[in-house]
Amino acid sequence: MGDLEPRTAPPALESMTTVACVGIGTIGGGWAAYFLARGFRVRAWDPSPAAEARVHALIDAAWPALTELGLAEGADPRNISVHTDLAEALEGAQFVQESAPEVLEMKRGLLRDIDAAAAPGVVIASSTSGYSMTEMAVEAATPERLVVGHPFNPPYLIPLVEVVGGEQTAPEAVEWASRWYEFIGKSVITMDREVPGFIANRLQEALWREALHMVANGEATVEQIDRSITDGPGLRWPMHGPMLTFHLAGGPGGMAHMLDHFGPSLLSPWTRLDAPELTRELRDAVVAGCDEEAGVRTVPHLVAERDRAIIAVRRVIDGFRAAGYGSGASLPED
Amino acid sequence: MGDLEPRTAPPALESMTTVACVGIGTIGGGWAAYFLARGFRVRAWDPSPAAEARVHALIDAAWPALTELGLAEGADPRNISVHTDLAEALEGAQFVQESAPEVLEMKRGLLRDIDAAAAPGVVIASSTSGYSMTEMAVEAATPERLVVGHPFNPPYLIPLVEVVGGEQTAPEAVEWASRWYEFIGKSVITMDREVPGFIANRLQEALWREALHMVANGEATVEQIDRSITDGPGLRWPMHGPMLTFHLAGGPGGMAHMLDHFGPSLLSPWTRLDAPELTRELRDAVVAGCDEEAGVRTVPHLVAERDRAIIAVRRVIDGFRAAGYGSGASLPED
Repeated sequence: MGDLEPRTAPPALESMTTVACVGIGTIGGGWAAYFLARGFRVRAWDPSPAAEARVHALIDAAWPALTELGLAEGADPRNISVHTDLAEALEGAQFVQESAPEVLEMKRGLLRDIDAAAAPGVVIASSTSGYSMTEMAVEAATPERLVVGHPFNPPYLIPLVEVVGGEQTAPEAVEWASRWYEFIGKSVITMDREVPGFIANRLQEALWREALHMVANGEATVEQIDRSITDGPGLRWPMHGPMLTFHLAGGPGGMAHMLDHFGPSLLSPWTRLDAPELTRELRDAVVAGCDEEAGVRTVPHLVAERDRAIIAVRRVIDGFRAAGYGSGASLPED
Repeated sequence: MGDLEPRTAPPALESMTTVACVGIGTIGGGWAAYFLARGFRVRAWDPSPAAEARVHALIDAAWPALTELGLAEGADPRNISVHTDLAEALEGAQFVQESAPEVLEMKRGLLRDIDAAAAPGVVIASSTSGYSMTEMAVEAATPERLVVGHPFNPPYLIPLVEVVGGEQTAPEAVEWASRWYEFIGKSVITMDREVPGFIANRLQEALWREALHMVANGEATVEQIDRSITDGPGLRWPMHGPMLTFHLAGGPGGMAHMLDHFGPSLLSPWTRLDAPELTRELRDAVVAGCDEEAGVRTVPHLVAERDRAIIAVRRVIDGFRAAGYGSGASLPED
C-alpha cells in the first residue's frame, strides 16, 4: 500500500465546501443531488451536451424527496456548474466522485486524468459497482488517493456506501473517504479487502441469478418472484437484514440453535448455490457476529422489534397501495 | 393427479368457522394467532404438555400487532382449545394446517393420521418449508386433499403463503386452498409445479448462502452483511421486489435496456452462483414479465413510486432507531 505525504493530507471535513462529480448520468447525477442537499457546491463534468439539462431535471425530480428527508442549511439545487473541460470542473474541488459508465478502459483513463488535474490531497472516489481499484488505478500517477465509494441507486435516497481501496491506495485515503461519507450522512461499510461485487451486490446478485434461473426454467414468473419478496422476507429485511432475521428464526436459542438444528438444510437443493461447509469455525463466527450485533437485545426483544417494524412497513406499503401506487392496473390520482 | 369426489367437495368459504392447527410451535402457534384474529375457532393438537401455555403466551404476544392490523368481527384470542388426542382436535375442523417439525418421517406419519381422522372434503395443508407434498403424502389414504401452504415467519404478520400440490393432489384442493388463504387476507402464490424451497426460500437461501461464504472467507462480517441490506437494497424491496427494482435501474428503457447493457455482468464473479445463459428467450421472458407487472406504470412513474416508498420506509426505520430500537447498545424505554 502507498502512503499519503503529510503535505498532501486530505482537507479537514469542516472545511469542505466544494465537490466534483465526474459523469452525471443516473448515478453521478444522483450523487450531485445528494451533495447539493447536504449544502455543498457541486462542479460537474460530463462530455454530453445534453448532460446539463438532464442533471437539472434529475435534481428537480429528487429535490422534494431530499427536502422531505431534511436539507442542510444553505442547500440550493442550483448550486451546480456543469463543465465539458475536466480541469475546469475540478478547480476548487475538495473531493471527486467519479461515476462514468462501467467500462474498464474508460474508468482507467478518466481516473488517470482526474488524478492529474485534481489538487494535491484531494481524495478521488469511484462509484464503480464491479471493478476493483487495483485494476482501475493502473494509469494514475497518484493511486494512493484513489478509492472505491460504491453507492446504491438512487444515491440520494439509499444510505449505503461501500468503501474499499486498491493495493496502492493509502489507508489514510480509505479512512478519510469513510469519515467523509459518514460526515454527510451516509451509512458506510469500510471493507478491508477487495471482493468482486463488494458486499451488497454479491448478496443481491445471488438472489437475482437464482431468480433468472427460475424464470429460465419456468419455475416462477417475474411477478411471483417480486411478490414472494415484497409480501415475504422483504418485509423483514429493512429492520434486521438477513443474518439477524435468522437469529430470530432460531427461537430463544438464536443463531446457535438455528445453525445447529437447521444446518442440514444447507445441503438441500433450495437454490443452485452450494453452501459452504458448516465448520465449527464458521458456525462460531456467525453466532458470535449475531450476538455482537444483537448486543443487549435478547431474542424476545428482537422479536418484538421485528414485529413492530413489519407492521409499520406493511402499513406504509398498504397505504401506498390504497392510494393507487404499487399496481400496474391504474395510476394514482396525484 | 387425483380427483376429489363431488361428495367430498371442500366447504364453501362463507361457511368456515373452525380450523385445526396440528403442531403449535413458533409456526403453528403463529398460524393459530392469525386464524383467531380472522375470527375463526381454532382446535389445536400438540403432543407436548407445555404446548398449551406456550401457545397462549405466543397469542398474547402477537395480539397487539394483530389488533393494530385489524381484527375480524368476533375475533377472540381465547377461542382456541388444545388437545393431545389428534382425532379429538380434528372434530369439527373444516381445514387443517399442519406445522410439525421438519422431519420427513414425522410429517409422513402425521399427514397419514390427519387424513384418516379429518372429515371428508377437508383440505389439509402443510407448513413445510422444504419437502414436496409428493414425498410427504406417501402414507396418506387420500393424498388428493393434501397441499403445501408454506407461510413465512411470523405467519401472523407476513402475508405470503406459497401453495403447491403434490403429484397426487387434486387441482381442486390446490385451488380451494389458494382461495381460502386469499379469503383470510393472505398474499397467495400458487405454483404449478413442485420446486425445492418453493420461490421465496430459494431466493432467500441464495442470499443466505452467499452471506455464509463471505463470513467463512473473512470477506464480510455478520454486521456488515446485515447493514449492506438494511441500508441498501433492502429499502427498495418491500415496494417493488428484485425484478421491478432492476426494471427501474435500466432507465427509461427498463429491463430490456438493463439486460441488453448489463447482461455481461452476469459473467462477473459477483457471487458464487453461476448465472443462467442469457438466451434471447430468457431475456424476452424477463422483459415481458416486467412489462406485465409494471402495467400502466412507465419507468418514471415507477421511479417516483420507488422514491416515495424508500422515503416512507426510511422514516419508519429511522423513527424506530430514534426511539432506541434497532441497536444493540441499549433497549428502548417502553
